[in-house]
Amino acid sequence: MEILKEVKFDERGLIPAIIQEAEGGQVLMVAYMNRDALEQTAHTGLTHFFSRSRNKIWKKGEESGHVQRVKEILYDCDGDALLVKVSQEVAACHTGHRSCFFRRYLPSSDRIEEVEPAVFNPREVYGKKE
Amino acid sequence: MEILKEVKFDERGLIPAIIQEAEGGQVLMVAYMNRDALEQTAHTGLTHFFSRSRNKIWKKGEESGHVQRVKEILYDCDGDALLVKVSQEVAACHTGHRSCFFRRYLPSSDRIEEVEPAVFNPREVYGKKE
Repeated sequence: MEILKEVKFDERGLIPAIIQEAEGGQVLMVAYMNRDALEQTAHTGLTHFFSRSRNKIWKKGEESGHVQRVKEILYDCDGDALLVKVSQEVAACHTGHRSCFFRRYLPSSDRIEEVEPAVFNPREVYGKKE
Repeated sequence: MEILKEVKFDERGLIPAIIQEAEGGQVLMVAYMNRDALEQTAHTGLTHFFSRSRNKIWKKGEESGHVQRVKEILYDCDGDALLVKVSQEVAACHTGHRSCFFRRYLPSSDRIEEVEPAVFNPREVYGKKE
Protein backbone atom coordinates (compact mmCIF):
# COMPACT_ATOMS: atom_id res chain seq x y z
CA MET A 1 0.00 0.00 0.00
CA GLU A 2 1.52 3.27 -1.19
CA ILE A 3 0.29 5.23 1.82
CA LEU A 4 2.37 3.05 4.14
CA LYS A 5 5.48 4.52 2.51
CA GLU A 6 4.23 8.03 3.25
CA VAL A 7 3.07 7.93 6.84
CA LYS A 8 4.92 7.40 10.11
CA PHE A 9 3.68 5.50 13.12
CA ASP A 10 4.89 6.69 16.51
CA GLU A 11 6.86 4.73 19.11
CA ARG A 12 3.63 2.91 20.03
CA GLY A 13 3.01 2.03 16.37
CA LEU A 14 0.10 4.48 16.15
CA ILE A 15 -0.97 7.47 14.06
CA PRO A 16 -3.82 9.83 14.99
CA ALA A 17 -6.74 9.87 12.56
CA ILE A 18 -9.11 12.82 12.44
CA ILE A 19 -12.53 11.72 11.26
CA GLN A 20 -14.47 14.37 9.36
CA GLU A 21 -17.93 14.20 7.82
CA ALA A 22 -17.36 14.39 4.05
CA GLU A 23 -20.59 16.33 3.53
CA GLY A 24 -20.62 19.52 5.57
CA GLY A 25 -17.17 19.12 7.08
CA GLN A 26 -18.09 18.52 10.73
CA VAL A 27 -15.15 17.02 12.64
CA LEU A 28 -16.58 13.94 14.34
CA MET A 29 -13.79 12.38 16.41
CA VAL A 30 -10.12 11.57 16.74
CA ALA A 31 -8.88 8.01 17.18
CA TYR A 32 -5.68 6.08 16.56
CA MET A 33 -4.79 3.60 13.84
CA ASN A 34 -1.94 1.15 13.75
CA ARG A 35 -0.73 -0.31 10.46
CA ASP A 36 -3.33 -3.10 10.47
CA ALA A 37 -6.18 -0.72 11.25
CA LEU A 38 -5.16 1.54 8.36
CA GLU A 39 -4.97 -1.44 6.00
CA GLN A 40 -8.39 -2.70 7.10
CA THR A 41 -9.83 0.80 6.73
CA ALA A 42 -8.47 1.10 3.18
CA HIS A 43 -9.48 -2.43 2.16
CA THR A 44 -12.98 -2.54 3.62
CA GLY A 45 -13.97 1.11 3.15
CA LEU A 46 -15.07 1.23 6.79
CA THR A 47 -13.00 2.87 9.53
CA HIS A 48 -11.05 0.63 11.89
CA PHE A 49 -9.04 1.86 14.86
CA PHE A 50 -6.64 0.52 17.43
CA SER A 51 -7.91 0.64 20.99
CA ARG A 52 -5.11 1.36 23.41
CA SER A 53 -7.21 0.37 26.43
CA ARG A 54 -8.36 -2.95 24.92
CA ASN A 55 -5.12 -3.46 22.93
CA LYS A 56 -6.95 -4.54 19.79
CA ILE A 57 -8.39 -3.33 16.51
CA TRP A 58 -12.06 -2.44 16.45
CA LYS A 59 -14.40 -1.54 13.64
CA LYS A 60 -16.22 1.72 14.34
CA GLY A 61 -19.89 0.81 14.74
CA GLU A 62 -19.29 -2.89 15.36
CA GLU A 63 -21.68 -2.78 18.31
CA SER A 64 -23.87 0.24 17.57
CA GLY A 65 -24.09 -0.18 13.80
CA HIS A 66 -22.94 3.43 13.50
CA VAL A 67 -20.28 2.72 10.88
CA GLN A 68 -18.22 5.26 8.99
CA ARG A 69 -18.00 4.77 5.20
CA VAL A 70 -14.66 6.07 3.92
CA LYS A 71 -14.79 8.73 1.22
CA GLU A 72 -11.20 10.01 1.31
CA ILE A 73 -7.96 9.32 3.17
CA LEU A 74 -5.55 12.26 3.40
CA TYR A 75 -2.31 12.63 5.34
CA ASP A 76 -0.38 15.67 6.45
CA CYS A 77 2.90 17.25 5.40
CA ASP A 78 4.89 15.42 8.07
CA GLY A 79 3.11 12.11 7.46
CA ASP A 80 2.24 11.85 11.14
CA ALA A 81 -1.51 12.43 11.03
CA LEU A 82 -4.41 11.13 8.93
CA LEU A 83 -7.58 12.92 7.90
CA VAL A 84 -10.33 10.48 6.95
CA LYS A 85 -13.44 11.91 5.34
CA VAL A 86 -16.44 9.68 5.92
CA SER A 87 -20.15 9.31 5.70
CA GLN A 88 -21.24 8.71 9.28
CA GLU A 89 -24.16 6.41 10.07
CA VAL A 90 -26.37 8.05 12.79
CA ALA A 91 -23.68 9.53 15.07
CA ALA A 92 -20.02 9.16 15.96
CA CYS A 93 -20.02 9.64 19.72
CA HIS A 94 -20.86 7.01 22.33
CA THR A 95 -22.65 9.78 24.28
CA GLY A 96 -25.29 9.96 21.53
CA HIS A 97 -23.94 13.14 19.96
CA ARG A 98 -23.27 13.40 16.26
CA SER A 99 -19.72 14.58 16.99
CA CYS A 100 -17.49 13.88 19.98
CA PHE A 101 -16.74 17.63 19.96
CA PHE A 102 -20.07 18.73 21.41
CA ARG A 103 -18.78 21.11 24.09
CA ARG A 104 -17.27 24.52 23.57
CA TYR A 105 -15.14 26.70 25.83
CA LEU A 106 -15.89 30.42 25.85
CA PRO A 107 -12.74 32.33 26.85
CA SER A 108 -14.54 35.66 27.20
CA SER A 109 -16.84 34.38 29.95
CA ASP A 110 -14.71 31.39 31.07
CA ARG A 111 -17.69 29.09 30.60
CA ILE A 112 -18.42 25.74 28.94
CA GLU A 113 -21.51 25.20 26.81
CA GLU A 114 -22.95 22.30 24.86
CA VAL A 115 -23.14 23.09 21.15
CA GLU A 116 -25.51 20.37 19.99
CA PRO A 117 -27.96 17.92 21.56
CA ALA A 118 -27.60 14.14 21.48
CA VAL A 119 -29.31 12.40 18.55
CA PHE A 120 -29.68 8.95 20.13
CA ASN A 121 -29.99 7.48 23.60
CA PRO A 122 -26.85 5.52 24.49
CA ARG A 123 -28.75 3.26 26.89
CA GLU A 124 -30.94 2.03 24.06
CA VAL A 125 -28.07 1.49 21.64
CA TYR A 126 -25.44 0.04 23.95
CA GLY A 127 -27.73 -1.53 26.52
CA LYS A 128 -26.36 -2.37 29.93
CA LYS A 129 -22.82 -1.33 29.02
CA GLU A 130 -23.65 2.36 29.05
CA MET B 1 -9.70 28.54 33.27
CA GLU B 2 -12.74 26.24 33.22
CA ILE B 3 -11.45 24.23 30.25
CA LEU B 4 -8.42 23.12 32.25
CA LYS B 5 -10.80 21.18 34.51
CA GLU B 6 -12.27 19.42 31.48
CA VAL B 7 -9.29 18.33 29.40
CA LYS B 8 -6.49 15.86 30.06
CA PHE B 9 -2.87 16.23 29.08
CA ASP B 10 -0.99 13.04 28.29
CA GLU B 11 2.12 11.69 30.01
CA ARG B 12 4.16 14.29 28.08
CA GLY B 13 1.85 17.08 29.24
CA LEU B 14 0.36 17.46 25.75
CA ILE B 15 -3.03 17.37 24.06
CA PRO B 16 -3.55 17.19 20.28
CA ALA B 17 -5.32 20.17 18.75
CA ILE B 18 -7.07 19.87 15.41
CA ILE B 19 -7.10 23.21 13.65
CA GLN B 20 -10.09 23.76 11.37
CA GLU B 21 -10.98 26.74 9.23
CA ALA B 22 -14.12 28.21 10.81
CA GLU B 23 -15.51 29.28 7.43
CA GLY B 24 -15.83 26.31 5.08
CA GLY B 25 -14.61 23.69 7.53
CA GLN B 26 -11.28 22.73 5.92
CA VAL B 27 -9.06 20.88 8.38
CA LEU B 28 -5.75 22.75 8.29
CA MET B 29 -3.34 20.96 10.61
CA VAL B 30 -2.82 19.07 13.83
CA ALA B 31 -0.37 20.23 16.49
CA TYR B 32 0.10 19.78 20.23
CA MET B 33 -0.61 22.14 23.10
CA ASN B 34 0.61 21.96 26.67
CA ARG B 35 -1.18 23.78 29.45
CA ASP B 36 0.67 27.06 28.82
CA ALA B 37 0.03 26.94 25.07
CA LEU B 38 -3.69 26.43 25.68
CA GLU B 39 -3.77 29.33 28.13
CA GLN B 40 -1.91 31.61 25.72
CA THR B 41 -4.24 30.54 22.90
CA ALA B 42 -7.32 31.35 25.00
CA HIS B 43 -5.96 34.64 26.34
CA THR B 44 -4.49 36.08 23.14
CA GLY B 45 -7.02 34.70 20.63
CA LEU B 46 -4.12 33.43 18.50
CA THR B 47 -3.08 29.77 18.39
CA HIS B 48 0.03 28.75 20.31
CA PHE B 49 1.51 25.26 20.29
CA PHE B 50 4.20 23.30 22.04
CA SER B 51 7.03 22.18 19.81
CA ARG B 52 8.33 18.79 20.84
CA SER B 53 11.46 19.16 18.70
CA ARG B 54 12.34 22.64 20.01
CA ASN B 55 10.87 21.98 23.50
CA LYS B 56 9.17 25.36 23.63
CA ILE B 57 5.92 27.17 22.94
CA TRP B 58 5.58 28.89 19.58
CA LYS B 59 2.95 31.18 18.19
CA LYS B 60 1.62 29.97 14.85
CA GLY B 61 2.74 32.52 12.28
CA GLU B 62 5.44 34.11 14.45
CA GLU B 63 7.85 33.94 11.52
CA SER B 64 5.57 33.84 8.47
CA GLY B 65 2.85 36.16 9.75
CA HIS B 66 0.35 33.42 8.92
CA VAL B 67 -1.45 33.60 12.23
CA GLN B 68 -4.63 31.77 13.19
CA ARG B 69 -7.34 33.86 14.88
CA VAL B 70 -9.36 31.71 17.27
CA LYS B 71 -13.11 31.56 16.70
CA GLU B 72 -14.04 28.55 18.86
CA ILE B 73 -12.34 26.06 21.17
CA LEU B 74 -14.10 22.70 21.49
CA TYR B 75 -13.00 19.51 23.23
CA ASP B 76 -14.07 15.93 22.83
CA CYS B 77 -16.08 13.51 24.97
CA ASP B 78 -12.97 12.06 26.61
CA GLY B 79 -11.33 15.45 27.08
CA ASP B 80 -8.20 14.26 25.32
CA ALA B 81 -8.40 16.22 22.07
CA LEU B 82 -9.11 19.85 21.15
CA LEU B 83 -10.80 21.22 18.05
CA VAL B 84 -9.90 24.85 17.44
CA LYS B 85 -11.86 26.71 14.77
CA VAL B 86 -9.86 29.58 13.35
CA SER B 87 -9.57 32.17 10.68
CA GLN B 88 -6.29 31.34 8.92
CA GLU B 89 -4.10 34.10 7.54
CA VAL B 90 -2.79 33.07 4.06
CA ALA B 91 -2.07 29.37 4.68
CA ALA B 92 -1.36 26.91 7.48
CA CYS B 93 1.32 24.68 5.98
CA HIS B 94 5.05 25.46 5.82
CA THR B 95 5.01 23.87 2.33
CA GLY B 96 2.90 26.76 1.06
CA HIS B 97 -0.35 24.81 1.00
CA ARG B 98 -3.49 26.15 2.62
CA SER B 99 -3.84 22.88 4.58
CA CYS B 100 -1.18 20.44 5.73
CA PHE B 101 -3.52 17.72 4.42
CA PHE B 102 -2.83 18.31 0.73
CA ARG B 103 -2.24 14.72 -0.35
CA ARG B 104 -4.82 12.01 -0.73
CA TYR B 105 -4.47 8.23 -0.89
CA LEU B 106 -6.66 6.43 -3.40
CA PRO B 107 -7.23 2.85 -2.23
CA SER B 108 -8.87 1.74 -5.48
CA SER B 109 -5.75 2.50 -7.56
CA ASP B 110 -3.19 2.43 -4.71
CA ARG B 111 -1.97 5.88 -5.73
CA ILE B 112 -1.22 9.21 -4.03
CA GLU B 113 -2.40 12.51 -5.50
CA GLU B 114 -2.09 16.14 -4.49
CA VAL B 115 -5.50 17.67 -3.85
CA GLU B 116 -4.63 21.36 -3.94
CA PRO B 117 -1.74 23.52 -5.15
CA ALA B 118 0.48 25.66 -2.92
CA VAL B 119 -0.70 29.24 -2.40
CA PHE B 120 2.67 30.76 -1.45
CA ASN B 121 6.34 30.08 -2.09
CA PRO B 122 8.03 28.89 1.13
CA ARG B 123 11.43 30.19 -0.03
CA GLU B 124 10.06 33.70 -0.21
CA VAL B 125 8.31 33.52 3.15
CA TYR B 126 10.84 31.62 5.21
CA GLY B 127 14.01 32.60 3.34
CA LYS B 128 17.07 30.42 3.73
CA LYS B 129 15.49 28.16 6.30
CA GLU B 130 13.35 26.37 3.71
